[in-house]
Amino acid sequence: MKSSDPRAYLERQREAIDQYLLQLLEPGEEPTLLREAMRYSVTAGGKRLRPLLTIAAAETFGLSGQRVLPVACALELIHTYSLIHDDLPAMDDSALRRGRPTCHRVYGEAAAILAGDALLTLAFELVAGYGLREGCFERALQISLELARASGRRGMVGGQLLDLESEGRMIGLSELERIDSCKTGALLQVAVRCGAIAAGASPAVLKALSGYGSCLGLAFQITDDLLDLEGDAAEMGKEVGADRAREKATFPALLGAEAARKRTEELYHQALVYLNELERPAGLLQELARQLVFRNK
Amino acid sequence: MKSSDPRAYLERQREAIDQYLLQLLEPGEEPTLLREAMRYSVTAGGKRLRPLLTIAAAETFGLSGQRVLPVACALELIHTYSLIHDDLPAMDDSALRRGRPTCHRVYGEAAAILAGDALLTLAFELVAGYGLREGCFERALQISLELARASGRRGMVGGQLLDLESEGRMIGLSELERIDSCKTGALLQVAVRCGAIAAGASPAVLKALSGYGSCLGLAFQITDDLLDLEGDAAEMGKEVGADRAREKATFPALLGAEAARKRTEELYHQALVYLNELERPAGLLQELARQLVFRNK
Repeated sequence: MKSSDPRAYLERQREAIDQYLLQLLEPGEEPTLLREAMRYSVTAGGKRLRPLLTIAAAETFGLSGQRVLPVACALELIHTYSLIHDDLPAMDDSALRRGRPTCHRVYGEAAAILAGDALLTLAFELVAGYGLREGCFERALQISLELARASGRRGMVGGQLLDLESEGRMIGLSELERIDSCKTGALLQVAVRCGAIAAGASPAVLKALSGYGSCLGLAFQITDDLLDLEGDAAEMGKEVGADRAREKATFPALLGAEAARKRTEELYHQALVYLNELERPAGLLQELARQLVFRNK
Repeated sequence: MKSSDPRAYLERQREAIDQYLLQLLEPGEEPTLLREAMRYSVTAGGKRLRPLLTIAAAETFGLSGQRVLPVACALELIHTYSLIHDDLPAMDDSALRRGRPTCHRVYGEAAAILAGDALLTLAFELVAGYGLREGCFERALQISLELARASGRRGMVGGQLLDLESEGRMIGLSELERIDSCKTGALLQVAVRCGAIAAGASPAVLKALSGYGSCLGLAFQITDDLLDLEGDAAEMGKEVGADRAREKATFPALLGAEAARKRTEELYHQALVYLNELERPAGLLQELARQLVFRNK
């Protein structure tokens, strides 16, 4: 099933992720405004690339996507929280995200900050609950550790700070790569690793998957920059040309658009080389790499 | 040692907590500004009540305070992150905290938001690392789960939102108790529980400790309100009278100061009754209850 048609399989998993997230955010004892702010951002129509990477990695090593859904969705919650906080007036001050007003524009800044906090916290609740229910205590702790490292001060949060500090400043290619590898690369990489850890993969496998994830992370960011430069605002659902307006260093700005595009293709092929090291069919991870690099939004 | 002089023991543990936190925030690969903002708030001279509760509970059930330090400090990181975010302009907009300018006043709003995010994330990293190193996988997952629940949408974060929503509105005693039990009670309660979980305590013990923690949480909040009303700004290190200025419902406002004070004493005695249920010496937890309720800052 999964190997015969990876695209169809991933599409079904995307729906399963959406459903799981909806269920997670059904009314409970939390304040209504907080729940609505969380729900608004989580259901804003993201591509669910991170949870799909987790599911694809788990499936590749024999664990069903269904079983690993809580871990996969934890990745999406962390991603969503980071978008909410990045969009805040004190940060990127964005008005639009995925074609809709940003969380703080709809629910106010306080609720947006708290919705982000709650989503981050909920991610760790999901992972702990998963481990306790499934009885895979050590693997779940390992996942929790890697998630925290990738999204914290030396990963995503640190990357966002470096990104803010780089605005309006001339930075070189290596600094830009460092920022992006923290800000977006770390979480993409850990999304893949977490699925494989849940499936009990070996350290050698994890190493190859880190290479794959690292290539994807960078390719993803360059594609983002290219789309910001050339993309269609309606298609993108956010303000286009924003990077140039705030004098942000980007790959196309440093390399030129053509060379930047070529770089994404090289990274894509390098990612596939890493998948070859796994010595098993990895159609799902191949397909995700394709979707992630060759996208138009 | 611990039973002969609980105060001296707790004082030594307070120093151990301070040292552990300092070490945790020594320079690493994170951006300097982020580390400094985290450090500034973590080393602002808090009373370390939450980590001390964790340590006291662990010691009471035979696990040394030293061993459980990472879990104890995770509690302090979560507490600190919540203060940083609560102080933000979009929230309580506070200028002073513990006698010093608040984090965002010193490092800017963006760094303060990110420092809070990074501290919350680091808390879960500590717990996971602790469990993996000590080999207590299931207990560490249970701790992670309880921490996430107590500090998330249905605990502390939810309480902060309810608190913001209640400003300038007439609310009754039961609503005030609900807000405070989410906002401050949940984390105090879970601080005690986590120490006992790390030590392998039984469900009956955890239940009694929840009762103890719940009494302390409420008593703590009422004492806070009384200090805001009557305390000395220099002693408190924050603006006094702030609650009245923003028309916030408080226990003294609803009950009168005398009745509020009497209530804290009742809660203190009720907490001691819960400790009796443990059927073992609990001098450290008794002493902490005393310090927590009968304090002047």
